[in-house]
Amino acid sequence: MRPFVLINMAMSADGKISNKLKKQIKLSGKEDFERVDRLKNSVDAIMVGIGTIISDNPSLTIKSDELKRERRDEGLMENPIRIVIDGRCRIPLNSDVLKKGEGERIIATSMSADDEKIKILSRYADVIKAGIDKVDLVELMKILYNRGIRRIMVEGGGELAWGLINANLVDELYYFISPTIIGGRDSPTPVDGDGFVSEFPKLRLIEFDEIDGGLLIHWKVL
Amino acid sequence: MRPFVLINMAMSADGKISNKLKKQIKLSGKEDFERVDRLKNSVDAIMVGIGTIISDNPSLTIKSDELKRERRDEGLMENPIRIVIDGRCRIPLNSDVLKKGEGERIIATSMSADDEKIKILSRYADVIKAGIDKVDLVELMKILYNRGIRRIMVEGGGELAWGLINANLVDELYYFISPTIIGGRDSPTPVDGDGFVSEFPKLRLIEFDEIDGGLLIHWKVL
Repeated sequence: MRPFVLINMAMSADGKISNKLKKQIKLSGKEDFERVDRLKNSVDAIMVGIGTIISDNPSLTIKSDELKRERRDEGLMENPIRIVIDGRCRIPLNSDVLKKGEGERIIATSMSADDEKIKILSRYADVIKAGIDKVDLVELMKILYNRGIRRIMVEGGGELAWGLINANLVDELYYFISPTIIGGRDSPTPVDGDGFVSEFPKLRLIEFDEIDGGLLIHWKVL
Repeated sequence: MRPFVLINMAMSADGKISNKLKKQIKLSGKEDFERVDRLKNSVDAIMVGIGTIISDNPSLTIKSDELKRERRDEGLMENPIRIVIDGRCRIPLNSDVLKKGEGERIIATSMSADDEKIKILSRYADVIKAGIDKVDLVELMKILYNRGIRRIMVEGGGELAWGLINANLVDELYYFISPTIIGGRDSPTPVDGDGFVSEFPKLRLIEFDEIDGGLLIHWKVL
């Protein structure tokens, strides 16, 4: 038993989520922004890899005041639980994800993380150890499920997405295709890592729609 | 004055045109195959980079017997002109593009290509020299235009697509998004090269449609 996992990412028409400098690039507009906010509101937890925290410093909070009010009215925290996959506890203590907005935080790390850093981080977040050298995602998902987390939205980056897809832990993808070209053989993509060499996972098209001059494609992982 | 240039490529949902071994992967089905054949039939010339010739060995011919018959009835060659961008004349003489199917071939090369190899290649194709170290695509497009070539379809790979887009030589893109994931930080993508760092080219969505379980997206380059 594991949580339902969806990945939400924005990419250029040529499949890049950033340029070779890994700088954050505005790929979507107001309509997609609101869609992502609503999707965040639909999950128990939002997950990102440490690379995304270091390069983009996202807060992973819900932005809409109306959605935040609705959540409070329903007795929920303002934000879903925020989970950072950080095998060696590299997360800077001044990261927005640790500082901004109300709500629980989880740092998922491995046995190879420094104990002192774990102790300090425990003041900011719940630290979960799973895996020897790096985070064991299968084990982590079991732990999260046992804590009552049933639905997770992954916001990136490509290395975490690879780890999850390769471990067969992903149910659906929401890919927003932006009307732009980034290019670059070294630019990050929505699924990086080693990549599949054969037996490529198959997808089924659930829905697609034009938004912000681009296309939102909703896939089911088969 | 230059020819109208469209790029047609198939990629996985995560923006890869092949895996890290650069092996050709079947990304589309019958319906898309027929669409590509009709698109080929609509152009004066089909262009690819030498990397694609070496890894995939495509013949770049029209496959449909009906289309070939129509072309003959109209007094056309069975296949549009086939152009290979090959700055150092690396093309193997037994490549299918040189051997298979009726029609003209052009090898576009640079001053750095070996004269002896050019002499041999001239038996198989028209060799055009443009550029010092590598093919000067802007100069080449002028030469092709002056030879009466008005509409070109580019079939890959990502390095040639980058060269063309970076030189502002591309008018439209046809991207077929296959219902599969390839992944891999070293897998080829539809636009490789150095990539843009800022001032990303903008696209306009012309049309999109579900085919073969995936999505065909037709973009205009602005």
